[in-house]
Amino acid sequence: MNYKIDNLQYCNWSREIFEINRQAGLDAVHVTIVYHEDYDEFLDELKKWELYFKENSDLIFLGRNFKDIDKAKEESKTAIFFGFQNCSPIEDDIYLVEKIHEHGCRFMQLTYNNQSLLATGCYEKIDSGVTNFGKEVIKEMNRVGIVIDMSHSAEKSTLDAIEFSEKPIAITHANPTFWHGAKRNKSNELLKALADSGGMLGFSLYPHHLKDNSNCTLDSFCEMVAKTADIMNVKNIGIGSDLCLNQPDLIVEWMRNGTWSKKKNYGEGSKNKPGFPKQPNWFTDARGFSNLDIGLKKIGFSDDEINDILGNNWYNFYKNI
Amino acid sequence: MNYKIDNLQYCNWSREIFEINRQAGLDAVHVTIVYHEDYDEFLDELKKWELYFKENSDLIFLGRNFKDIDKAKEESKTAIFFGFQNCSPIEDDIYLVEKIHEHGCRFMQLTYNNQSLLATGCYEKIDSGVTNFGKEVIKEMNRVGIVIDMSHSAEKSTLDAIEFSEKPIAITHANPTFWHGAKRNKSNELLKALADSGGMLGFSLYPHHLKDNSNCTLDSFCEMVAKTADIMNVKNIGIGSDLCLNQPDLIVEWMRNGTWSKKKNYGEGSKNKPGFPKQPNWFTDARGFSNLDIGLKKIGFSDDEINDILGNNWYNFYKNI
Repeated sequence: MNYKIDNLQYCNWSREIFEINRQAGLDAVHVTIVYHEDYDEFLDELKKWELYFKENSDLIFLGRNFKDIDKAKEESKTAIFFGFQNCSPIEDDIYLVEKIHEHGCRFMQLTYNNQSLLATGCYEKIDSGVTNFGKEVIKEMNRVGIVIDMSHSAEKSTLDAIEFSEKPIAITHANPTFWHGAKRNKSNELLKALADSGGMLGFSLYPHHLKDNSNCTLDSFCEMVAKTADIMNVKNIGIGSDLCLNQPDLIVEWMRNGTWSKKKNYGEGSKNKPGFPKQPNWFTDARGFSNLDIGLKKIGFSDDEINDILGNNWYNFYKNI
Repeated sequence: MNYKIDNLQYCNWSREIFEINRQAGLDAVHVTIVYHEDYDEFLDELKKWELYFKENSDLIFLGRNFKDIDKAKEESKTAIFFGFQNCSPIEDDIYLVEKIHEHGCRFMQLTYNNQSLLATGCYEKIDSGVTNFGKEVIKEMNRVGIVIDMSHSAEKSTLDAIEFSEKPIAITHANPTFWHGAKRNKSNELLKALADSGGMLGFSLYPHHLKDNSNCTLDSFCEMVAKTADIMNVKNIGIGSDLCLNQPDLIVEWMRNGTWSKKKNYGEGSKNKPGFPKQPNWFTDARGFSNLDIGLKKIGFSDDEINDILGNNWYNFYKNI
């Protein structure tokens, strides 16, 4: 059995997008449901998703574990797994970790770009690693079954998380810096440590993480995947597209700024390019998975390896944690 | 005019304690009103204080600036200045800095013992200094008029705060490590930098910060004050007693643990001594200021210097910020 999984999307959700994901053949999508929201605001987001599930029950349902990916395949639906891109919803309370798990959270980043109570983000000057509270939260996430996601974290913090976590962790959406030197991308050393601990990297298709940004070619992307497979092993890589379909630019502004500064920060963008960047033409939405299939074959991956990269590896990761 | 100011108390407040503070001749007290509370919980604390002010209007009133210390002197009352020992009430929202100021907050620690969103606490292994959000908050605290208090912060974070703040900062309650090597106490280098920037140190009378703890002698304490005056200048030192009168032990447990760990942390205490320590017999409450007067004279301070240390320096600090 082969699975197709996109392990990170943050779209402006609508029936249209759920249909596109089905057309792409996605059995599962890990969706970001909150960034800087606190616990009560997270509960508000859940209400929106209750409605999405109700109104699109022919296309999607809430995924709770790997069996729901099998169920999705059988029923030709997409299992939606909830994740957080910041740890704000647990506030300063370790007892909320169990609560967010009960409400469906399966992935949580210990940091967004800035310092959190748990660890350091990749936009801070100095990385102090996982904090006292962070260590306790990692234990609790391990216990209840929430994956530690370090996509937006700084290097030492990520190495700490790999060391402290008893279960494999994930970088759901990022690329290697050897290919494109963005702050959000990851060093070879870190990727090796991630793979050695059984962790997963999801390749991002977000233009700021791509060589030549919106003009990145499919060949260049697939060559990068091949080189990363050499570093990490083909069993530890997958896709986490970071698709932000139909999101207005004020959303990326909010993602970057939250409420932490009175002056505007452009994050990966710039004053001249403040908004969401244009997707490369071979990956404008999840139907681009078919282009990845073509490109990965061209670079020399076998069919089995391509199936691993496009979903089976994530399926096994879900199964093992 | 001479003033008597205790620039840190966290008591289990009652009329009895307000009376004691008056008997001690205190014109002003900086009181901790929150530790780990969020913004809404801070508002709840304010309601308690509204009642204290109403029921004890012959003894106390809310202080908003240095003129209220003069008013207190004239009326033989104690002006109460609000402060926070953690930055939890501003959550992740810079716009709350102005709000807490409107509600009377005049001192805020950037951290308690652990990492906060703003800086690193003295109980973390690695100190990354003031964070991105922290820099923005310092600017905003400077703008609205809240003193940056680094009593529980780690060294680099404190040096950063001194550097980034346009106004002098304070360490309201701590002692030098040359005298007693507690994690909460401060190095000579840091104390010099604090004094050079016009900042203030408030000497703590909390036994965990004292040489020989509860058995610390008045002579030893005053000798330490004299040595610190040599390092910092007698104009940059005052008292921040850290008195926690009538607090039950569950409060110190909560101060140390908040909700960040499922296992109990003993902070400055230990498994065998988990509770509040016993005050030295020459400073069981604020009336111990009269013993400080005697001890400081004995060690060789002039009357003017003693008046500076016991209140005038804090008065001038309030006046200048």
